[in-house]
Amino acid sequence: MPFVHRVRPRYAEVDAQGVVFNAHWLTYFDEACTRWFDAMGFAPAEAFFRDFDVMLVKAVLEWQGPAGFDDVVDIAVECPRVGTKSFDVRYTATVGGRGACVGTITYVSVQPGTHDSTAIPTTLRRALETDAGVSGPPGAPSPPAR
Amino acid sequence: MPFVHRVRPRYAEVDAQGVVFNAHWLTYFDEACTRWFDAMGFAPAEAFFRDFDVMLVKAVLEWQGPAGFDDVVDIAVECPRVGTKSFDVRYTATVGGRGACVGTITYVSVQPGTHDSTAIPTTLRRALETDAGVSGPPGAPSPPAR
Amino acid sequence: MPFVHRVRPRYAEVDAQGVVFNAHWLTYFDEACTRWFDAMGFAPAEAFFRDFDVMLVKAVLEWQGPAGFDDVVDIAVECPRVGTKSFDVRYTATVGGRGACVGTITYVSVQPGTHDSTAIPTTLRRALETDAGVSGPPGAPSPPAR
Amino acid sequence: MPFVHRVRPRYAEVDAQGVVFNAHWLTYFDEACTRWFDAMGFAPAEAFFRDFDVMLVKAVLEWQGPAGFDDVVDIAVECPRVGTKSFDVRYTATVGGRGACVGTITYVSVQPGTHDSTAIPTTLRRALETDAGVSGPPGAPSPPAR
Repeated sequence: MPFVHRVRPRYAEVDAQGVVFNAHWLTYFDEACTRWFDAMGFAPAEAFFRDFDVMLVKAVLEWQGPAGFDDVVDIAVECPRVGTKSFDVRYTATVGGRGACVGTITYVSVQPGTHDSTAIPTTLRRALETDAGVSGPPGAPSPPAR
Repeated sequence: MPFVHRVRPRYAEVDAQGVVFNAHWLTYFDEACTRWFDAMGFAPAEAFFRDFDVMLVKAVLEWQGPAGFDDVVDIAVECPRVGTKSFDVRYTATVGGRGACVGTITYVSVQPGTHDSTAIPTTLRRALETDAGVSGPPGAPSPPAR
Repeated sequence: MPFVHRVRPRYAEVDAQGVVFNAHWLTYFDEACTRWFDAMGFAPAEAFFRDFDVMLVKAVLEWQGPAGFDDVVDIAVECPRVGTKSFDVRYTATVGGRGACVGTITYVSVQPGTHDSTAIPTTLRRALETDAGVSGPPGAPSPPAR
Repeated sequence: MPFVHRVRPRYAEVDAQGVVFNAHWLTYFDEACTRWFDAMGFAPAEAFFRDFDVMLVKAVLEWQGPAGFDDVVDIAVECPRVGTKSFDVRYTATVGGRGACVGTITYVSVQPGTHDSTAIPTTLRRALETDAGVSGPPGAPSPPAR
């Protein structure tokens, strides 16, 4: 079961078309990432900046349907890939079971306080791999039951 | 020469890492799109909603380097593809000639006031194709000199 | 006991000084208002626009201290004044019991779908007055125990 | 003549009522402040954080009318008060000469990199007082001709 973060779009985030403005999905996914790290045991305001930090290098967003003001938006978070210095996180947002937006974001590990890439620290790697194992890469054999 | 829109990142848009927060790039690209439509002769607040409207179906963002508070960010706007109901716009953002962020966004034409896709109206198609001809699809022969 | 809404500032909302950027407090208070209306029985996405709507005419914000990324921010919501066409809501935000920001916002009732002011509808008035009675104006006698 | 900063509200900043969402006015005023400091000779990205810094302690906003997507919003910036450690800036936003929003913001001077208040540095004070002299406090005698 992937980690799921729930968001209720704010009135401020809905545009004149009555739907969440596109950019806010990246903010929702960032918030989901914060809560996911928290759930994995990394206190967001402490672990980041001190133990490790990340920057985005790529984001792919695909919209399947709208989300409106105060809708119940559930964002499932999975880690399909962990590399040496970078990893991918996939965010799958649904509204009442209907697809809304899927984002895949590639993060690169950087030295805290800098923009210099660095190997993903071991504690972070272990957590991501555990999660990657749970969610599994596309086409990969199922992970052993747990 | 592609259309270029200039943005100076607001203090509010720069995060604790001292760089523009990722989601704001989509907002910058949206603002660049507004000014580009304006330059093509479509008054943004009038043409949209009445003559045509668009929704995003896909966005691919790649970051090459940071942009900071009040940097001079130039965003070149090009239309590499025009389909029947959808088209792509590529946004190439640079800071002092250095790459910052490239976004390719796929828009689908919708009936104003609805979320229903529809063929791109002729006036819009003509404008996009003119621009598409200027910038040219990847691998396409160069447009004639102008 | 006033209604309390909890907010965890997003990374995107914290600026280069490491604190929540000032404008976001208005967004937090708006979100708190949404949940407060919800708690009073007005489903936000339905009641607004159909039964009544409001626009802001005045906001007074005072900051006592900072809030940072992922802090636990509690926003108490009270209605100290209900007039004929307008009412005030006071938002008192604290971080771990320490004052962060107090906002008093004056809303005017408008005809849904317009910007025309109108008398506060009875159902809304009743809810606000009940809350106004609970929280009470400064210096007013305590409401009877309930 | 006060300094005037022009803003064109972004599509992202207009809500389902078709008007600029309230919180964005604080962001517009912040951007106007950046450009005003720039015009006074303080390069925003350098002077702040190094020579001086400020934090908001109070903001009073009053709305007179709406601003919509892509409207031409002119924000006049004036400094009606300069104290020892704090100063006020008044932002008067109009759309085609019609009032939209007036904000008065009180800033306190802080030691760069800290939240500790400090006397307004001399160079900043001199610039603010010159501007304060131009705009003049309410009811004050006119400044001498310049």
